Order: sequence, then C-alpha cells, then structure tokens
Amino acid sequence: MHSNLWVEEKFEDFLGIKFKVEKVLFSGKSEFQTVDVVETKGHGKMLLNDGLIMVTERDEFAYHDMISHVPLFVHPDPKNVLVIGGGDGGTAREVIRHQSVKKCTMVEIDVMVVEACKEHIPQTASALNNERIHLIIGDGVQFVKETKEKFDVIIVDSTDPIGPAQPLFGEAFYRDVFNCLTDDGIVVAQGESSWYAMEIQQSLLKVLNNVFPKTYLYSFSNLTYPGGLWSFTFASKQYHPISDFSPERVEKSGLNFDYYNAPLHSAAFALPSFVNKGLSGLIDN
Amino acid sequence: MHSNLWVEEKFEDFLGIKFKVEKVLFSGKSEFQTVDVVETKGHGKMLLNDGLIMVTERDEFAYHDMISHVPLFVHPDPKNVLVIGGGDGGTAREVIRHQSVKKCTMVEIDVMVVEACKEHIPQTASALNNERIHLIIGDGVQFVKETKEKFDVIIVDSTDPIGPAQPLFGEAFYRDVFNCLTDDGIVVAQGESSWYAMEIQQSLLKVLNNVFPKTYLYSFSNLTYPGGLWSFTFASKQYHPISDFSPERVEKSGLNFDYYNAPLHSAAFALPSFVNKGLSGLIDN
Repeated sequence: MHSNLWVEEKFEDFLGIKFKVEKVLFSGKSEFQTVDVVETKGHGKMLLNDGLIMVTERDEFAYHDMISHVPLFVHPDPKNVLVIGGGDGGTAREVIRHQSVKKCTMVEIDVMVVEACKEHIPQTASALNNERIHLIIGDGVQFVKETKEKFDVIIVDSTDPIGPAQPLFGEAFYRDVFNCLTDDGIVVAQGESSWYAMEIQQSLLKVLNNVFPKTYLYSFSNLTYPGGLWSFTFASKQYHPISDFSPERVEKSGLNFDYYNAPLHSAAFALPSFVNKGLSGLIDN
Repeated sequence: MHSNLWVEEKFEDFLGIKFKVEKVLFSGKSEFQTVDVVETKGHGKMLLNDGLIMVTERDEFAYHDMISHVPLFVHPDPKNVLVIGGGDGGTAREVIRHQSVKKCTMVEIDVMVVEACKEHIPQTASALNNERIHLIIGDGVQFVKETKEKFDVIIVDSTDPIGPAQPLFGEAFYRDVFNCLTDDGIVVAQGESSWYAMEIQQSLLKVLNNVFPKTYLYSFSNLTYPGGLWSFTFASKQYHPISDFSPERVEKSGLNFDYYNAPLHSAAFALPSFVNKGLSGLIDN
C-alpha cells in the first residue's frame, strides 16, 4: 500500500496516462497477449491486455452500456445476439438485461482473459455464469465464417487492430458477419478514437460501407482510453439508429442505466465537425 | 529534441497525464500563479497555469467553440459580450466571429498569461489585437461588481476553483453577473468534470439556481483535461438552450467550425445517466 507503483499506458511517443496501483492481482502471458489485472487507487480493478487498458470498475459501465443498448434498442425484437471478444463479460452482462434476448453467444479467443476476470473482476465477469450466455473460447473470425446460426445483433467488442484483433477490422470478416445476420440485423463494433485514430475509423467505415447499406458512427466518453472521446461503428441492413429508435421502449423496459438513456442514444450520433469532415462520405444520414 | 522531457499533470493522488515536451518556451511566476508555455510533440504549444494544462493548439478549438457558440447562437442578437478570464484569447477570438457582436470586453486578472500567449501562442492570442476586443487587465469579480454596462452574454472562462479563480464559483459573484446582464442575458461558465468533480458541479449549479431562473449543463470532449468529458454551465434569464435555438441561424451565419455544429449544440445537453442523477434537481428541463 505504501509502494509507488503505477501502471502507465503510452500512446505513440507523445502521451502517457498513469494510474496509481495498490496491488497486482494477476499477471500472465497467454498465446495471444499479456494479461494483467491490477487494483488501482482511483479506478477500482483494471484489466490490461498487452499493457493497454481494457476495463476499469469505475467507468466500464459507459463502454458496456453504449456498445450494447444502442443496437438492442434499435432492433425491434433482438432474440439471438452474438458478442465477439468482450472476454471481461461486461458486454454480455448488459445484453442479457434485455428480456427479448433468448441467447447470447460470446466468442472470446483468449481463455486467460475470461479466467482472470472471473476470478478478479466479478463486476463484469460474474454474468458469464448466466444460462442465457453461451461462452465459446475460439476465434471469432472463424466462428462467423462457419456458423449456420443467424443473429439479430452482432457486437464486436474487440481490442485495437494490432495483435489478435487485427482481422476484426477487415472486409472478409464483415462479409461473414453480414451473412450470419438476419435480414434486419445490426452490427456494432469498437471504433477507436476520432481524436487520435481517424485513419482507423476511416478504414473501418470503408470496409463497412462496402458490405452494409447503412453505416454510422456514435461516440461516448470514457476515463481510460487515450483522448476520452471514443467511438462505436453501427452498420445495419435496414434500421436507422435514430429514426427507427423508440425512446418509449427504453422507458417501458423498466431498465435503469448509469450511462445510457434515450436522449443520449440519439445525441451520441451527433459528431464534432472535425469528425464529420474526416468521415465525410463514409457515414449515412 | 533528443531530451526526455515530459510535462505531467497529476490529478489527486491516483492519476497522471504526461505529454512529451520538445522545448520550454516560457516559464514565469506572476503574482497569481506560475505560467508555462511549452512546445509539445503531439499537441502543439501548450499553456499551463500552476502546472495545470489550460490550452493546447491541437484541441483548443473544442473548448473555445463550445464555450462561446452555444450561448451566442441561443441569444437572438448578442451585441455586447463580456469574457471573464480567457487570457489565452481563444474565447474572445470565437466571440468576435459573430457579426452581431459590436464589442467583446475581456477581463483577465493575469497580464503574464496574456503576454506569454501573445508571444508564443498566436493561434489563440493574436485575436486580442482586434479592435472589437477591449482587454482589461483586472479582477473579474471586481469588474462585475462595479460596471454600469449591461451585457447580452457573459462567458466565465476560468481555471479550477483553486487559486485566483475561486471567487468565480461563488454566489456573490453570480449575483453581480445577474445584475450586469440584460433582461434576456445568458451566462456560460467553465463547469469542470462530471466524472471527477461532481461535487464542484453540484456546488456551482446550486449557486446558479439561487440566482437564475433557468440552469443547465452541457458537455464536450477534450484531450487534456482529466477524464476527457468536460462541462459548461448555462444559466439564463429567459432563453432555453435548445427550444430557443434555431439551427438555421448557424447555417445562415456562414461560419464554419471544427467542433461546433447545430446537431451537436442540442446533443451536448444530453447527459449520461450518472450525471443526471448526480445533478438531479439542479438542472431545468
């Protein structure tokens, strides 16, 4: 408790974000990446993959609310949901709060992430014991290529496009995602930072535009990802994320959220002008 | 260029944000605070007061757009504007882009901030040479107590409520602000972080509620303030920030912005649920 232990995430060669660490709870090296869980002083327990902060107990609700409830409240009746990645369990936890969801399949490549979170971050991972969640340890890219199942909503809860998550940003993957979505399906994906990674957003949206008739970007605010403002892509076969969204459904659901709410749902699609300019022609109206 | 020089902003005892520095351009100590200007590797020139990051060339447009254009596009005809603080000049620069504004009075307490920015950060400070900007070096608290002028919009572009800016968060100050606003006047103020400083937001909104009939909070995203999501308070004698806002006026103005736009204007008032809960009873509908 008296040691001067910090964990620091570097971004390129000009930025660092440091968090005071009280205790290292887990450190391991899987076949895909290093996995660490630490108890921080200001942000509760924190998961890091390859030294990049994935989740903290203090702010994980923002990410998990926005990646899951936006598509699940646009789709009128999501029954069968697929989560790719998301080994900490937070996304699946939010998905199964929707009563319409009969089954949430989750395909995580790295069993070490799941086990470390089950042991040390039950706030997100305890949901993985729920019987409506079908956890598959395997490669999401392979899964969407081979599955015969059709999903109403697919959520790509990936790390950055380096290491194991790289194929999750490519067109071959999204053609398979398209094929295993129902005729009115929606896919939402972790979409990086408009401030610091515009070229990744452009590249991902070009891929989505090549595959899906409708493509959008929405954003939320987070404490630990460089730049604070973070994005999700929303690609859809039919539904518009705002005009097909009914705020009344949020109220009728009886669900309460710490981040998500109906006005914020629509507001999240209003982007700063520099983002609109950078993504011009890649986002539908 | 080869040195390992960084500037680090600490937040409480659990968070630090570090920026690579290429060159120290200015370091001084005024009667109010230390003032530093550095050339960073990733964010251009950066102003720090008492070690806290105020402005960087890379992202200053977000703060300055949102503190100025939101009230100036709600008020139907802002002619006389007062800026308190804002020594870097960025807020005044945006204010005078509005053709209706005949005069922008700026009251900055610390001449060293103005002079350091004029010399080293012309991106924000060169606007201070404009003849419609009347720069007064003095105490904003004293100014609003004594002035006989009436202002359509007052912008409180202050530092944190420690050091010289502390009185700018108090009720006595806002009673004077109320008195020197026109009958349909608006005051917008730097409102801290909902993630890390909810108690300051609550305290400031309580003060505003005691003085103004209508009080709101809106937010934007920034690269250098801890937590990314940052807020402005909006207090008004008459106008509602959304229902009295006309998106057409933004278009008709012919102005282009890198951050602000009409959809974002309204979206900025949609707050995450934890903010709505924390500020319950303090924000009007």
